[in-house]
Amino acid sequence: MVSVTIWNEYIQERAEDEAAAVYPEGIHAVLRDALEGAGHDVHVATYAEPEHGLMAEVLDDTEVLMYWGHRAHDYISDEVVDRICNAVYNGMGFVPLHSAHFSKPFKRLMGTPCSLDYRESAERERVWTVDPGHPVADGLDESFVLPETEMYGEPFAVPEPDRLVFVSWFEGGEVFRSGCCYRRGAGRIFYFRPGHETYPVYKEPVVHEVLDNAVRWAAPRGDTAMDFDNHALEPAEQ
Amino acid sequence: MVSVTIWNEYIQERAEDEAAAVYPEGIHAVLRDALEGAGHDVHVATYAEPEHGLMAEVLDDTEVLMYWGHRAHDYISDEVVDRICNAVYNGMGFVPLHSAHFSKPFKRLMGTPCSLDYRESAERERVWTVDPGHPVADGLDESFVLPETEMYGEPFAVPEPDRLVFVSWFEGGEVFRSGCCYRRGAGRIFYFRPGHETYPVYKEPVVHEVLDNAVRWAAPRGDTAMDFDNHALEPAEQ
Amino acid sequence: MVSVTIWNEYIQERAEDEAAAVYPEGIHAVLRDALEGAGHDVHVATYAEPEHGLMAEVLDDTEVLMYWGHRAHDYISDEVVDRICNAVYNGMGFVPLHSAHFSKPFKRLMGTPCSLDYRESAERERVWTVDPGHPVADGLDESFVLPETEMYGEPFAVPEPDRLVFVSWFEGGEVFRSGCCYRRGAGRIFYFRPGHETYPVYKEPVVHEVLDNAVRWAAPRGDTAMDFDNHALEPAEQ
Amino acid sequence: MVSVTIWNEYIQERAEDEAAAVYPEGIHAVLRDALEGAGHDVHVATYAEPEHGLMAEVLDDTEVLMYWGHRAHDYISDEVVDRICNAVYNGMGFVPLHSAHFSKPFKRLMGTPCSLDYRESAERERVWTVDPGHPVADGLDESFVLPETEMYGEPFAVPEPDRLVFVSWFEGGEVFRSGCCYRRGAGRIFYFRPGHETYPVYKEPVVHEVLDNAVRWAAPRGDTAMDFDNHALEPAEQ
Repeated sequence: MVSVTIWNEYIQERAEDEAAAVYPEGIHAVLRDALEGAGHDVHVATYAEPEHGLMAEVLDDTEVLMYWGHRAHDYISDEVVDRICNAVYNGMGFVPLHSAHFSKPFKRLMGTPCSLDYRESAERERVWTVDPGHPVADGLDESFVLPETEMYGEPFAVPEPDRLVFVSWFEGGEVFRSGCCYRRGAGRIFYFRPGHETYPVYKEPVVHEVLDNAVRWAAPRGDTAMDFDNHALEPAEQ
Repeated sequence: MVSVTIWNEYIQERAEDEAAAVYPEGIHAVLRDALEGAGHDVHVATYAEPEHGLMAEVLDDTEVLMYWGHRAHDYISDEVVDRICNAVYNGMGFVPLHSAHFSKPFKRLMGTPCSLDYRESAERERVWTVDPGHPVADGLDESFVLPETEMYGEPFAVPEPDRLVFVSWFEGGEVFRSGCCYRRGAGRIFYFRPGHETYPVYKEPVVHEVLDNAVRWAAPRGDTAMDFDNHALEPAEQ
Repeated sequence: MVSVTIWNEYIQERAEDEAAAVYPEGIHAVLRDALEGAGHDVHVATYAEPEHGLMAEVLDDTEVLMYWGHRAHDYISDEVVDRICNAVYNGMGFVPLHSAHFSKPFKRLMGTPCSLDYRESAERERVWTVDPGHPVADGLDESFVLPETEMYGEPFAVPEPDRLVFVSWFEGGEVFRSGCCYRRGAGRIFYFRPGHETYPVYKEPVVHEVLDNAVRWAAPRGDTAMDFDNHALEPAEQ
Repeated sequence: MVSVTIWNEYIQERAEDEAAAVYPEGIHAVLRDALEGAGHDVHVATYAEPEHGLMAEVLDDTEVLMYWGHRAHDYISDEVVDRICNAVYNGMGFVPLHSAHFSKPFKRLMGTPCSLDYRESAERERVWTVDPGHPVADGLDESFVLPETEMYGEPFAVPEPDRLVFVSWFEGGEVFRSGCCYRRGAGRIFYFRPGHETYPVYKEPVVHEVLDNAVRWAAPRGDTAMDFDNHALEPAEQ
């Protein structure tokens, strides 16, 4: 049982008919049901709340932060971004989803542009496990299908992943590194590509399985609190 | 200008009509022409020669060994395999092609089974560059097409590549990590997936470009000769 | 609670006075007490047993294999080495200790010579955690001291570790990458440098902490059994 | 021959006697002489110049940016930091030295705090090559000594290096990962630890050798200019 905060921008589901049709109560509502169903303790936060709902005390109680954003990337408070990144350095897991590839905290943690190519075309995606020994792939078949997705294509401008778990095949001829693991400080990061506000990807049971695995994998182990200042040090040996 | 030895098993092109039709003078002949055309100094060796043509003096003069094998993997002399691996540890580049994924030297250098799934179906492959900053991808377009290939599918049982350069998309729905970089000792290894004895993949100009890049990248830099025994050591500090 | 098999060569402790003085019942006895004390289910196997005590049914019941060898590396049956490596590919953790850097299974899994420099001089070693977020370092101080060790010096001829956890400082002026993580297939490998048959390193409580952490980290997660043959595959997409 | 820009803060050498005594014409003057002596085309830029001397046209002509800073990290213009990072993504090499571990561009590119422990104590450092096959170590002995340095100790809060080349031993009992390679976009990064404004480390011939190697290694290969926006893409396959 992991203490998860799902952060959802929650703008398009309220403002755009196409998104509202698929996720009438917000993407977070579907994700929350899935993760609670998997036994996790789930909290939800959204863009419009004060401090985007990510006050220090919320992050202090969060083992894994799942993050969906799209329209408001540029409007996220830098103070909140600092807070998220510092929590990651101190061990909080971070699971950015889909368009969160372009979010401030993900870009900050990667140190690269995180750009990619895309196509909104409701096309077929087949996600292959290339690292079947990885905990995020536990229990999955060799591949699974998402009937309607937004395509993301390479090059994906991220650092070489520490561990690449999934690669996607798209009907239109593209491929994408869809499941990428990183560590930054003590925190584990799992970027998961699938999903879009107008396709019912987050209702797929197999996606729930992946996200459950991701949350378990990204949760902190042991006591990883550190401080990240420079310190003057006395000699270890005399 | 790199001193390259192309090793080709050269069994199927002589014994099987389908292969002979595509590579009447052997796969090595086509590769040799391509690499000589790119300005390299090319030597050829084949399975049937004494010591498979890979005598110590041949490897001593080799900066990069390109390696194609399929039928005779199990019959390669272990002494020659030792010699290849030791040359790699001392800085020789190694470029195994396609079915050489199951060759003794590649498996030895990887330390894993190197198994995969496959399908001989003359299907379309599109090779994407996922790391456009890598020298092996220099000058290539975002993707290139091979109209008829044997499919290789994941999971490919290798260690996580140090650097993944290419990912292939196949008509039949599969993906594959088609360009994988490793270092073992001082030697650089580039595994390149495309190719098959019955498809004219090695006649494609874009494949020649990749192999030219690979040879330049894998060539040793500086003086990397080492010995790999354990040694008793006097204290560095007194 | 992890099901651990401790494999000890157990030759020097019976044949050599210096080793017998430090480990009268064998290195495995001290390690077994430590790991049982940490709550693990421990089995012991030694060189002199049939199949070195590592029959298929033993490995089938083993989640993590801890391995200490020195004198008899060359005499280990290749069939047993195959069995160990296959178990690792299928998810068994592997924790080679100290002189096991030159053991057949470790060299096979690394694909490199695994050589290093050494000095038997009972000198002081200080082990630093360079990756405090790693589970193997959980609960440790910034560094710990081993008052009398055999020095191991760089270069250590292994592939770049997936994750480097410890670096050692030696009184005589050397350094060493003392805690190295790898994955091969589904199996996790943690090489831990400290230890020697004539120094009481394995009696140090802090070493017990590290080995307990290592065992927990290396234990398989989920169901990772695979087969590692090549397979012909029907198209995923029609 | 590489086109190198050496950026030096050049504050302490003018304002502090201790630094002026060692580097009367600035750290950059010593580095410039060394790199020109190795055959490179060297340009110098400093903090006090407009845009810190790093105008777009300067970076356009720069293949490798060497960077020394200490006191003024917080005062570097964010626009210049953006420009440096974008140049790196597009292929420019970046060689931050010593206290530049805490510079804005290095922290941005790493995505982590980059903190460490330190001691100004004029103590002895021995730098070991742990990756003798790496081009940055070409021609070096197994280790080299810097008689008087500032100590830097672990944990160094950076992402796991793509390739670790050097590890330092310090008289006072500490170790440090002193030569760390990364790639961000198409650009290669080599962080080199040794050096300080009050110790003559940058006058050591062996340090000149390392920096010459680093510059050659970090220089761009081929044409790596990219743009890092998201782009809508037509299907590759029809």
